[in-house]
Amino acid sequence: METVSTNRSFGGTQGVYSHASSRTGTRMTFAVYLPDHDKGAKLPVLWYLSGLTCSHANVMEKGEYRELASKLGLVVIAPDTSPRGQDVPDDSAYDMGQGAGFYVDATQEPWSEHFRMRSYIEQELPTLIAEQFPVDMNRQGIFGHSMGGHGALTIALRNPERYRSVSAFAPIVAPSQCPWGKKALGRYLGEHKAAWRDYDACSLVEDGARFPEILVDQGAADDFLEEQLMPQLLVDACAKAEIPLTLNMREGYDHSYFFISTFMNDHLRWHADRL
Amino acid sequence: METVSTNRSFGGTQGVYSHASSRTGTRMTFAVYLPDHDKGAKLPVLWYLSGLTCSHANVMEKGEYRELASKLGLVVIAPDTSPRGQDVPDDSAYDMGQGAGFYVDATQEPWSEHFRMRSYIEQELPTLIAEQFPVDMNRQGIFGHSMGGHGALTIALRNPERYRSVSAFAPIVAPSQCPWGKKALGRYLGEHKAAWRDYDACSLVEDGARFPEILVDQGAADDFLEEQLMPQLLVDACAKAEIPLTLNMREGYDHSYFFISTFMNDHLRWHADRL
Repeated sequence: METVSTNRSFGGTQGVYSHASSRTGTRMTFAVYLPDHDKGAKLPVLWYLSGLTCSHANVMEKGEYRELASKLGLVVIAPDTSPRGQDVPDDSAYDMGQGAGFYVDATQEPWSEHFRMRSYIEQELPTLIAEQFPVDMNRQGIFGHSMGGHGALTIALRNPERYRSVSAFAPIVAPSQCPWGKKALGRYLGEHKAAWRDYDACSLVEDGARFPEILVDQGAADDFLEEQLMPQLLVDACAKAEIPLTLNMREGYDHSYFFISTFMNDHLRWHADRL
Repeated sequence: METVSTNRSFGGTQGVYSHASSRTGTRMTFAVYLPDHDKGAKLPVLWYLSGLTCSHANVMEKGEYRELASKLGLVVIAPDTSPRGQDVPDDSAYDMGQGAGFYVDATQEPWSEHFRMRSYIEQELPTLIAEQFPVDMNRQGIFGHSMGGHGALTIALRNPERYRSVSAFAPIVAPSQCPWGKKALGRYLGEHKAAWRDYDACSLVEDGARFPEILVDQGAADDFLEEQLMPQLLVDACAKAEIPLTLNMREGYDHSYFFISTFMNDHLRWHADRL
């Protein structure tokens, strides 16, 4: 692991690091905010997964999480959203390829060699974090935005024993049923739709996945609400499965970090209460 | 005035606007955060001037001011740092030309036609803001970062009747005595140094300018501290002039928005208490 940068912020250290990933076969960059802490302390970990077009930097610059994370003693980790590089397949569209990994392990050419973000986030990066930072991996929570909300929900639903808390801002709750998801899952996983169910929060719940409770904040003025995000599908799936879901519809708020930052502290408190 | 964008954030509206400036002879862009307020209310105004290479967007994205500005009912305005455009003179260096207006009215060719940021910030933009937003122009404060800290200090010292409060993050307190300032003032104003004194906070204080009190936060790990910023010069000038100056040296903090955002709320409260 190589340190790209560290900056003192809100009584802690905002770091950016990179490492050679065996899962993606590329160099991967991620951000870690580490609050000041007593020597020997092990802090709980909160994973933030970002949305389409984002890298580790978007939430680090615009997320406004450091003040409260410092007070609560939460380590906040922001991975990249895909492998990147000249030798990595890409697509000219913003919603496919680099910056759009969709937190899947791709099975289809040309994506399957590098686009292994599920394994990277679920396995490789946690191992590295546990080795390199003063963290208590028995206290992990996960959240994210849009495509990253999809990532957080699906990863938590597949690994309820590992994460104590999950939440999302404007998540893609049912990629199998929206244009972004159909395109990405179709190309990363192929058209055999049974393979998509592991990467669709609503399908996972229908298939028996459970989590103690879920928090979602959604802007009511989000341009992607009706066509791509469709939170009601998750409301319905959770109701049927008796999973307590809190969905806050936020009047006037859109899909941007102006929305996310506004409700960031609510989410940090949600996780801290459960970690 | 044209609305470029508005986003709901922290119970208010973060807007970006543009207008044809008669002072700079260019189209100028600026950001305004307007908290929700009662009908007919007139809110106090806080001007934030940015540093080298910045536009209106840097503090808007990374400054973390909206939560408390909303609670305090402060309108926060972030202008650009220079005129911009293909027909506007520029320099390949980051510290001269576009993005580096130094809040002066340039008198030297080729800068004097467009680089009139003093008039723009002191006269033209306040007139526009007063016309277009629900503001109380009898309650104005001003702050800024680095080159923008220089701007805030010099503008407040020249106009103590207009601004009730002034503060700065890592300001250039004596441009006449540092490389950034000598280069910019020399080229914008010419080598006759008497003309520089109006644009140097320490010189203004030496020449009799007064302000009730000044707040400065400065990172002790700021790479520009010794060569460019030299806050002790302002400490000395203010001591001689009996201007109360609070200088907080912040151990470990650098020149970035990771530093600024950490102490943003302290500065918002400083201004709100005086507005």
